[in-house]
This record gives sequence, C-alpha cells and structure tokens, in this order.
Amino acid sequence: MEPQNREPYSTLGSRLRPPVINALMSAMLDNPRLLSLAAGFTDTTSLPSASVSEAVEALRSRPGPPEHLQYGTTQGRRRLRELLSARTTHHDVLWSGGIVPARTMIGNGSQQLLYLAMQVLCDPGDIVLVERPTYFVLLEMLAGLGVRPVSLPAQADGSLNLEAIEALLDKLVRSGESARLKAVYLVTYFANPSAISRSEAEKCALARLLGDRGLFAPVIEDAAYRELWFDAPWAARSVFALDSWEGFQRLYLGTLTKPFASGLKIGYAHGSDASLLDRMTWLKGHHDFGSANFNQAILEHALESGAFDAHLELLRPAYADKMWHLNTALESAGLRDLGWEWEIPAGGLYLWLRAPEGIDTSVDGAFWAACMEEEVLYVPGDLCIAERDVRWHVRLSFGVLDATGLEEAARRFARAAARLSTMSVH
Amino acid sequence: MEPQNREPYSTLGSRLRPPVINALMSAMLDNPRLLSLAAGFTDTTSLPSASVSEAVEALRSRPGPPEHLQYGTTQGRRRLRELLSARTTHHDVLWSGGIVPARTMIGNGSQQLLYLAMQVLCDPGDIVLVERPTYFVLLEMLAGLGVRPVSLPAQADGSLNLEAIEALLDKLVRSGESARLKAVYLVTYFANPSAISRSEAEKCALARLLGDRGLFAPVIEDAAYRELWFDAPWAARSVFALDSWEGFQRLYLGTLTKPFASGLKIGYAHGSDASLLDRMTWLKGHHDFGSANFNQAILEHALESGAFDAHLELLRPAYADKMWHLNTALESAGLRDLGWEWEIPAGGLYLWLRAPEGIDTSVDGAFWAACMEEEVLYVPGDLCIAERDVRWHVRLSFGVLDATGLEEAARRFARAAARLSTMSVH
Repeated sequence: MEPQNREPYSTLGSRLRPPVINALMSAMLDNPRLLSLAAGFTDTTSLPSASVSEAVEALRSRPGPPEHLQYGTTQGRRRLRELLSARTTHHDVLWSGGIVPARTMIGNGSQQLLYLAMQVLCDPGDIVLVERPTYFVLLEMLAGLGVRPVSLPAQADGSLNLEAIEALLDKLVRSGESARLKAVYLVTYFANPSAISRSEAEKCALARLLGDRGLFAPVIEDAAYRELWFDAPWAARSVFALDSWEGFQRLYLGTLTKPFASGLKIGYAHGSDASLLDRMTWLKGHHDFGSANFNQAILEHALESGAFDAHLELLRPAYADKMWHLNTALESAGLRDLGWEWEIPAGGLYLWLRAPEGIDTSVDGAFWAACMEEEVLYVPGDLCIAERDVRWHVRLSFGVLDATGLEEAARRFARAAARLSTMSVH
Repeated sequence: MEPQNREPYSTLGSRLRPPVINALMSAMLDNPRLLSLAAGFTDTTSLPSASVSEAVEALRSRPGPPEHLQYGTTQGRRRLRELLSARTTHHDVLWSGGIVPARTMIGNGSQQLLYLAMQVLCDPGDIVLVERPTYFVLLEMLAGLGVRPVSLPAQADGSLNLEAIEALLDKLVRSGESARLKAVYLVTYFANPSAISRSEAEKCALARLLGDRGLFAPVIEDAAYRELWFDAPWAARSVFALDSWEGFQRLYLGTLTKPFASGLKIGYAHGSDASLLDRMTWLKGHHDFGSANFNQAILEHALESGAFDAHLELLRPAYADKMWHLNTALESAGLRDLGWEWEIPAGGLYLWLRAPEGIDTSVDGAFWAACMEEEVLYVPGDLCIAERDVRWHVRLSFGVLDATGLEEAARRFARAAARLSTMSVH
C-alpha cells in the first residue's frame, strides 16, 4: 500500500507554530546588516570565561572520581538546592517560612520549569491569568498547550488596575469559567518586557481579590530578572513571604545563568507545596531525568566561591551603562520629541516604549517596514499582549549590542520613527 | 473564602506517578549497604575529566568573545549538527541519502528528543508499538501522556516474532484501532534492557508487515548504545538507510554523553522529514529554547579534536571487562546451575537474565525480598514489558560498580537466587 498523506500529528503537534524568535532570526539572516534590539540575549563580552574555567578546574582537582561528569538526580544537586534556598530566603529579607531544599528543583533554565508547571496544572481550554504585557514565550507556550491566557487589566503606568481586575474576576465567576482558572503568572521584578517591578501592596491586593472569590489558583512568580538591578534591589518580597498569598500554592522561578553565563542554562523553582513540586519532578523524569549535572556543579562552585556574586557586581553597572547608552541615544536622536514615551528602568534588560498615537508597531504595520529599511530589529509589543489588542508598544533590549552598536541602532530606530511621523503629518 | 481542597492538576498532572527510579533510589537511602546493579549510570572512574578541561580551555582561548557561554539556537549548534550528520552517515556505511544538519537537532540527552517526538505525535489513547522488553522510562513517559504501548511479540531469543506481529497488526486493522497507531519505537543496538541488536533483515521485515497494511506510522529508532560495542560495531544500518522504511517518517536518536560524560547531557535526533523535526524544534522552543550551548561547544570540540573517539577507544574495553567480570562472577557463584539463563552481550551496559520457572522477579515477589536481605539491587524485568505480564526477567547493569563491587554484588545476587531455589525444592 502507498503511504497515506495525512498529517500524523497529535492535537498539540498540529497546534504548534514557528516561534516568533524564528521570524526575527530569519530577518537577521535575510539581512545581516540588521542591528538587533530584539534578542533577549545577554552581553557576550562580559561573560565570565575565567570563572567558568576556574570552576571546572576546581571540580577536576577534587579528590575522588569526577562525579560532576556523571548523571545527577532528577530534582538536582542537593548542595545547589541548599544554596539556592538560602539565597532566595535572603532576598526575601531573611524570611524563612517555606523556601527549603526539599521543595526546590533544578531545570534547564527557568523556562523548562515554567513548562513543567503549565503541563502539570493546565488542560487545553483552561485559563491562566497573566500581566498586560507579559513574557511572549509564555504566550507561545500556552498556545501550544491550548491554554487560554487572560490579561489582568493594567493602568497606563503598568500597575495593576484593581477595579478592572475585580470586574474581570466577577465576570469569570458569573460565567462559570472560574473552575477553569488554573494558574496566575506574574513577572514581578524588572519584568520582560515592561521593566516594571511590583510592590508588595500590589501583589497582596491581587491575592485578596482572588481569595475573596475563592479563586485559589496556584501563583507562579517569575523572578528571572530579580538579581539584575542597577542601583539597588527591588525591595518587595516574593509571594512566598506575603501573608495574603498563604492560601495559594506558590511557585517561585529563578535563573542562575542569565545573570552569569546564559550558555550554561540552569534555572530553579521553589514550591510551597510538595505536591506540585513532586509532580513537576516526576514529569521532568519523563522529559530528561535531570539537568546537566556538570553545569549544576559549576554553578554550585561559583556560588560557594563567591565568583557568582563577584560577576553580578561587574554585570550590574555594565547593564546600567548599556541601558543609559541606549536611552540617551534614543533621546538624542529626538525620539521623545516625536511623541514616543518610556520609563527609565531600574533593572533588567529592556526598554518598553509606547509609540505616539496612530503608529502600529506590529509586523503588519508601516513602522515595522520602516525599521526593516533602516536595518534595525525590535520585538513588536502586541506579541506580549494576550489579547493582541494593543499594537503600539516596542520592546528594545540593550543586552547584546555594545555601546557603538546601541547608539547606531538607536539612530536607525529614531529615523524610522521620524519617517512615520512625517507620513502622519502629511 | 477558604482555600478549596480539590487537586488542582491537569489530566496529565493527575496521571503522573513517582518514577521507578525513585523507588530504587529510596531503597538505597534506606540501606546504604545495598550494592546497586540497577542504575543505568556510566562508569565514574573512566569519565574524561582531562578531555573536558582541555575543551573548556580551548574554547576559552579562542579569539573573540566567549560565544559558547551565550545562549545558542533552539535547534542546536550548526557545526555540531554537521559533525553528527557526518558521523551517523559514516555509521550507516557512508550511505548518504538523508541525514543532514538541517534535519538534525540537539536535546538534553536523547531522552528529551523522545519526549518531544511523543508529544508531537501522540494524543491520549493513541498507540505506540514497542519491543518486548523495551526501555522502561519510555513506558513511564507514555503512561504520563496517556498513550498506550503495545508490544511487538518476540521469540524466546528476543528476535521479532513475525507471524505473531502479523496477527497483531491484522487485529489492529480489523478492530479499527489502526488509526490510533502513531509511532513505532525500536531500540536496535545493544538495547536497554535486552542487550539485543536487530539485523537489517529483521528491521526490513517489520517495515513490510506495517507497510503491507498501510500502517505508515513514524518509526523512532533509539540508537543510544550504538557506539558502546565491545569487539566490533553492530553491522546493521539504521532505518534511515533501509529501503523498506522509505515510505515512513523516520527519527533516529543518539546520545553524545552516555559514551563520554553523562553529566554533560547532550543528545541528538536526525529526522527524515522537515515537518516532524520542525515541530519538535518549535516545541523545544516552549520547553527550554535550546540545550546548554556550553555543553554543545565542549562536545563539538571533543569530536573535532579526536578526544571523543579516543575516549570511546578506552571505554569499550573497559565496559567489556566489566561485563565479563559480572558475567564470570555470576557463573562462578553458580547462577547458571540454579537455572538462570542469559546471553553474553556484545555491547551496551546490561545483562538481561531469565529466572528459572516459578521465580517472580517483580517487587511483589519473594526474590526481590531476598535480594533486599542480601543487599543487592536490580531492575525487575516486568517494568520493561508494556503489558507487565512477564515477571521472570532481571536487568543487571555493570556500568557503575568497579570490579570488586561487581563480584560482591554477583555473589549476593546468586545467594538470593539460591535461597529461592531451596525454597521451591522444599
């Protein structure tokens, strides 16, 4: 018999689409002169090559066989989990109610832990509450899983619009859909893409609005950028340390490699309940039964030797400098005069710009085309909005390009903006 | 309102169970004197610590910024994919019809690539054909996904029982269930757990039985142990090189780290069709958007410098020695005289033993209890059988323990066997 031509994929397999990042990368391949303010990559020149080598040598010279080159456990190295529990507890101002090694697990970046959590929590058709805007890869992941993201309404300044959230939650309860609410996903420190951080009051207010309606869906706090502050850490403690969230399952996600060496790809999760963490660990047993033990051992050594924190102390002013470079270059090129608005971030890797009225920043708009002609790449803001109904933001990353690159990219971006401005005047 | 007590997990989340390996590990924790012939770990003393350091230093001394510490792409390093395509093509006796870098991807061990494939191919309730016995983690993975494994009937010597397979496939077609058949999973070189390798004739016969009935489900050939031969490689080419499989989507899975340093955790997949590989790559974008670039760069260097192959040349006789040690120790302890049977493997990491009639090797049986008392651990064979209806095999691994450990473990195992033998006589 002849092969059948049917698509042999699962429901999930058929739902998959090429990721946004592919489109951006193929734009770069089509025109290698493009300068990218799109990629969320880290600064390459400041990567800690010496510290990594030192850790590898220290591991090599340990007495006994090189266990760091052997398989590890699915949950991750015990000593690393101890160090991470102590570290997050310290960030939460020495609050010590629930972050413990037994309920900590290691993943291939915090991304994998987010995927495991969503697989364990959500069926197709379920609802996850997200911020507006939110991490665009999360939106792609949910689309793949067939899960519906619903935005928490926001004020113009990015803070939560509590009144509108109240109305949203009431509507959810009335419609009978509240049983489908399976998680709340928050990026609370120097967020991707908004650069916003949330106050304790804001986090607690959200918990109360949910709790008052009996909506105790697990909360996932993504703290990927928490350590990448410029002048001072963001003082708000995590949902683990806040009484208002006590009735909720809480999952805290962090990364060790974005603020160190992203090529090592190690993230971690703290869980408030063994039940969720256990299931994520069992599922990781199916995915890969454990992240590379070698990489975990390197990071464990870098944390213990102080190399990790020493690197962070170099990195913070370096990223602050790069942010100021991009910001100043955009201002010098007259972007604010053209009606573009943005806040100066206090940490993270992104500027979140709002275009003047009438400019559509999506890939279907004239502004995207102008930027392609000016040879500069950005992330269209609508990709970061669950409902895709806000099409006037732009995410710019200052992580990758050096000072000269950032300045040139900023000039190109402003020229594209000026073109559109001229067009709308005429 | 008070928190609800309902289990908030998805269908998949609720289906998850602790992996078998957890039970074995907790047995070890309960009694640290246990000697383990269970873990499929690699030999720790022979891990290539010097080669890994050398690769790290070589990468560090490359001119330019340390790109190996930066994020990579989701698909994996291009040069590594080139090297792997050439390598597998070489294994398939320079056959060059379809293994190319563009349809090669890198994962966190071949395990992750297997998971991605199953997610892309199978919905809950779908069927995957597997060998009898098969890789037990695959069975756990399918259980988590709600997918039904169905065994391909085997002869007593482990070869495929073609007549019985014909009957099985006919039944599948008649029952209308053949539309649910979504993949065929084969471990064809020094398999885990059977140590068996499949001939080209055997693989082709299976393709014809499937094709004759129009059952062109994708075939996944897991070649994790292909390079771990003792005296000579297994000559049969992969399904990629066999005409009989041409009408099928083919996926070939390999690992770079089991035969080198398992702690680096890098595997790869070759696909015959862009369509399946693309979907797996998009899905990997949701899982972790790329395996650690650092580890990929180390392995790329080890392949190019020859360190990888030099290590394999040391490893093969080392594993052959360990196999002979375990085998001889079991024979010297009189295990064959007690009615136990096994073949001498030609590669891989396992002995697959068949107990004499009347002995149940599952964890519910008296033999398991006897082994716990004698302080030796094994993998019960029923865990490797989709239908769990064959309870008289044992998988023993000679990967981890040294010669002395293997000999002592063999003596303990034989003592447990002797006890049961005495019991059944009385």
